[in-house]
Amino acid sequence: MSVTQQLAEFIVGAQDDALPEWTIHEAKRTLLNLLAISLSASRSDDAHLLIDWARREGCTPRASVVGVELRTSASTAALVNGYLCHLQDYDDTHFPSVLHPTAPVWPAVFAAAEETGASGRAALAAFVLGAEAACRVAISVHPWHYDAGWHITGTAGVFGAAAGAGRVLGLDTTQLVAALGAAGTRASGVREVFGSHGKPLHAGQAAASGMQAASLASAGFSASDDIIGGRRGFWAVLSAAGHSEDALLGKLGEHWELRMNGLKPYANGVVSHPLQDAVIELRNAHELKPEHIKSIEARVHPLVPELMGKMDLRCGLEGKFSFRHCAAAALVDGAGHDAQFSDAKVKDPVIAALRAKVSATVDPAVREDEVYVAITLNDGQRHEIHVEHATGSPENPMSDVVLRAKFDSLAREVFPAERADALWHAVWKLDEADSVAEVARLMQVPGR
Amino acid sequence: MSVTQQLAEFIVGAQDDALPEWTIHEAKRTLLNLLAISLSASRSDDAHLLIDWARREGCTPRASVVGVELRTSASTAALVNGYLCHLQDYDDTHFPSVLHPTAPVWPAVFAAAEETGASGRAALAAFVLGAEAACRVAISVHPWHYDAGWHITGTAGVFGAAAGAGRVLGLDTTQLVAALGAAGTRASGVREVFGSHGKPLHAGQAAASGMQAASLASAGFSASDDIIGGRRGFWAVLSAAGHSEDALLGKLGEHWELRMNGLKPYANGVVSHPLQDAVIELRNAHELKPEHIKSIEARVHPLVPELMGKMDLRCGLEGKFSFRHCAAAALVDGAGHDAQFSDAKVKDPVIAALRAKVSATVDPAVREDEVYVAITLNDGQRHEIHVEHATGSPENPMSDVVLRAKFDSLAREVFPAERADALWHAVWKLDEADSVAEVARLMQVPGR
Repeated sequence: MSVTQQLAEFIVGAQDDALPEWTIHEAKRTLLNLLAISLSASRSDDAHLLIDWARREGCTPRASVVGVELRTSASTAALVNGYLCHLQDYDDTHFPSVLHPTAPVWPAVFAAAEETGASGRAALAAFVLGAEAACRVAISVHPWHYDAGWHITGTAGVFGAAAGAGRVLGLDTTQLVAALGAAGTRASGVREVFGSHGKPLHAGQAAASGMQAASLASAGFSASDDIIGGRRGFWAVLSAAGHSEDALLGKLGEHWELRMNGLKPYANGVVSHPLQDAVIELRNAHELKPEHIKSIEARVHPLVPELMGKMDLRCGLEGKFSFRHCAAAALVDGAGHDAQFSDAKVKDPVIAALRAKVSATVDPAVREDEVYVAITLNDGQRHEIHVEHATGSPENPMSDVVLRAKFDSLAREVFPAERADALWHAVWKLDEADSVAEVARLMQVPGR
Repeated sequence: MSVTQQLAEFIVGAQDDALPEWTIHEAKRTLLNLLAISLSASRSDDAHLLIDWARREGCTPRASVVGVELRTSASTAALVNGYLCHLQDYDDTHFPSVLHPTAPVWPAVFAAAEETGASGRAALAAFVLGAEAACRVAISVHPWHYDAGWHITGTAGVFGAAAGAGRVLGLDTTQLVAALGAAGTRASGVREVFGSHGKPLHAGQAAASGMQAASLASAGFSASDDIIGGRRGFWAVLSAAGHSEDALLGKLGEHWELRMNGLKPYANGVVSHPLQDAVIELRNAHELKPEHIKSIEARVHPLVPELMGKMDLRCGLEGKFSFRHCAAAALVDGAGHDAQFSDAKVKDPVIAALRAKVSATVDPAVREDEVYVAITLNDGQRHEIHVEHATGSPENPMSDVVLRAKFDSLAREVFPAERADALWHAVWKLDEADSVAEVARLMQVPGR
């Protein structure tokens, strides 16, 4: 059997009820995270580039788009929802590969589930298996593939989307091999477009191509028997410098890469997350207000000033590349959502004054997910804290309580609290639901 | 200016009326060729994989699919028409790069023209410019890119589709640079799937991605300023072994790569084409019938037996890889369309008997587009011929008369002769037409 056939056999052969319960729990959490960030993202002009495009397509309504009142075809819904999920760079990260698995996989799985009327449990299991496929393909080519310039969320993500959607559509192994072929030969996305709409488009395209590939394969579409390992396949062409068969196939079904996937507590680069954790914890413990603060001093990993050292901020986006802004906004708002990186927040005089009081000393002994912070108050008090592992790292997963706070904060940008609450609970009960229809209904915003 | 900006400026700045008239003539011929082969291809189950998928999408009808009665969205029409055009491997070939430019470019241009109501002249000019963009990108990375395993029709084709559709949509240079970015970051297609439905899907996907990219860019979508030459762009990531800036940009507007594009007279690998030319010429000159033939002896380029040496044929597709079958069918039918490679033709006892009388001697001095053939009859007569350049090679372009024969033969598989005739004439008058609507109407088959 080819490596692609072995992967397909695992995806097809897994039993919904035999998956570890923690993976189903994690699938709910990734969906809640997707919904929160996509609802928030759906309000922007950037989002409406794709939403308006989908409206013009005018497809037969079979699957729902998050954050608006729009039902469209499964592949178009997958395209838009994948784009929305990655638009704020606020989705999850598979740490060993820097793949963002939810954005390409969940939208394909969810659209397939809406189209076919699959049960909630089947959808959750399909996400777990699709995410596993995406992460396995990703680690089989990491770091060579990413270093060559590929955006792994688009390229490895499309395999996960096809696997997840194919699972929902009930493909057999031969069909799933064809679906992986039809999807994998359209793996695309280069890092050149980072910082533009092109980056989230990769996630949407991966979701749509995976959805379409599964659908075509169910109708008899043929492709290579080994798109991953074949002589002119994914490994050979998109990762010529190296690949690992063991990473793809080793301990399938025993070890789950989903364990290494983290949810982001803040909508900015991950290296500032420990600092934001620290500031928020001291803020909440001591009820700190900006007018109390004399200085915020941090001892940090060398990447913090290198990647996040931006000064003289002119717009919100630049705030995402300033650890000083991240810390200042965290102290003022107790958060780091996209709302904390608006133009208005960056120009806010209170936050601007506080930014000037933030400083960092580099310490090569500090790990990337670690920080030491001391906050000195005007009255001379000094509070210190050591964050060992930032929230959202594999060693310190975001708790369901913190996820709830993130969800509420973002969902309430577009919803009344009751509807956000209903959506939250509908996802937690999804494994008992006959279909995903209730979640699909609640994730739309009537009249928008 | 980046190399992408220079290419975009050329595309945007060209004047419809200033293009050489032969390029407009050639644009009509490529469209007629597309229509002929797509009409023929549209009858097969393979075609209906994509046609049925498009029907299920159910998009707002704005653009037409060839060979059926179906109007759909512009990007969906581009997807299906690109797939149909490449399905029989019977489309055109840009000899310096082995790119098939029409399949990704015309469907995007045509759909954009239908959607916007562009004039026939504007559509023809947009094809010329889009094809130039595709061929220029192709030769800028050839042979390194193809040798690495990429299917250049998908990867370079998407740039041409975006350029052509962008031209129809009236994008300015900045918007076209963004369109090329949104398209180019989705360049995909590996040679691993050759011999399956995946290969024509590459052409369709390129057409659809280019169409969508142009549409998104017109609404404000952003991407890289230099998707082709940027540090993590097309050259760096998809052609790491080499590229040529001069091939991309040298003599733009003076030299046209369309000159190097040939139409295929036979629906099989190009190395057997001189042999088929020779057999058909002798057949027609001497009214040869299969029962007359004692032997058909050819002196050929070494690739002929290597690529086309298949024996013991079991199905029609295998006939495409047998120079003996190509020669035998050419003598019996005087043609080499897809119809000559059906299962029935391969099993036909007359053709099978004739195949056994075909032999070839390799001669390294014979060029790839050249052949020497001798046909000996049962009555002892012997006819000899030397084909210097096969029909459809740059040195011997297919004449309009031969194109007409190909068009009629294929179009009449699905149409009455009068409708084929009307379509033929509508395309020749397209440069005077207010829109492409008449061609769009005639290329559909009512009730299918």
